[in-house]
Amino acid sequence: MSYYRHHVFFCTNQREDGSQCCAQCGSAGLRDYLKRRTKELALACRGGVRINTAGCLDRCEEGPVLVVYPDAVWYTYVDQEDLDEILTEHLVAGRVVERLRLPD
Amino acid sequence: MSYYRHHVFFCTNQREDGSQCCAQCGSAGLRDYLKRRTKELALACRGGVRINTAGCLDRCEEGPVLVVYPDAVWYTYVDQEDLDEILTEHLVAGRVVERLRLPD
Repeated sequence: MSYYRHHVFFCTNQREDGSQCCAQCGSAGLRDYLKRRTKELALACRGGVRINTAGCLDRCEEGPVLVVYPDAVWYTYVDQEDLDEILTEHLVAGRVVERLRLPD
Repeated sequence: MSYYRHHVFFCTNQREDGSQCCAQCGSAGLRDYLKRRTKELALACRGGVRINTAGCLDRCEEGPVLVVYPDAVWYTYVDQEDLDEILTEHLVAGRVVERLRLPD
């Protein structure tokens, strides 16, 4: 049993040269949204779900990206609906959302 | 095989009220040190080791903390020597450093 059952890291990095990056795609606001939803659903606790910001995860061209550990499942997402699906399917039910999954 | 064999997240959070936090313990500088060492050793690549900053990992009183995924092993550390040991033992040789390990 890991400290957090699902530990989610959002890349919120802003590249300075204007090239593709997760921050451009509203990743900080969407991270806030998922963090709020996990709190509303009482999932945010030890043994539960933790949502964190991270620095550049170095998959910029595939972004915006997040990764769920210890599962080591990477996702891209566009909007709150995508995050809702990751929340209900993966973080609650433990089922990987294949349509949003990035390759290992 | 996960995208990164070992993906390390350093809490570098600064608490505003002056209470115990990882930033107080020089976590940002020590993260930079480990990041530089992994590059010098050519470990920093896909399939290798990635060092990232993270927001608050919510283990403030046990800090400074870092976590290695997908292993889900948490550590505390004091200085570069501790990080060197985590690097050579865990990140290179795959052996957990029990003396620095935090409980799950």
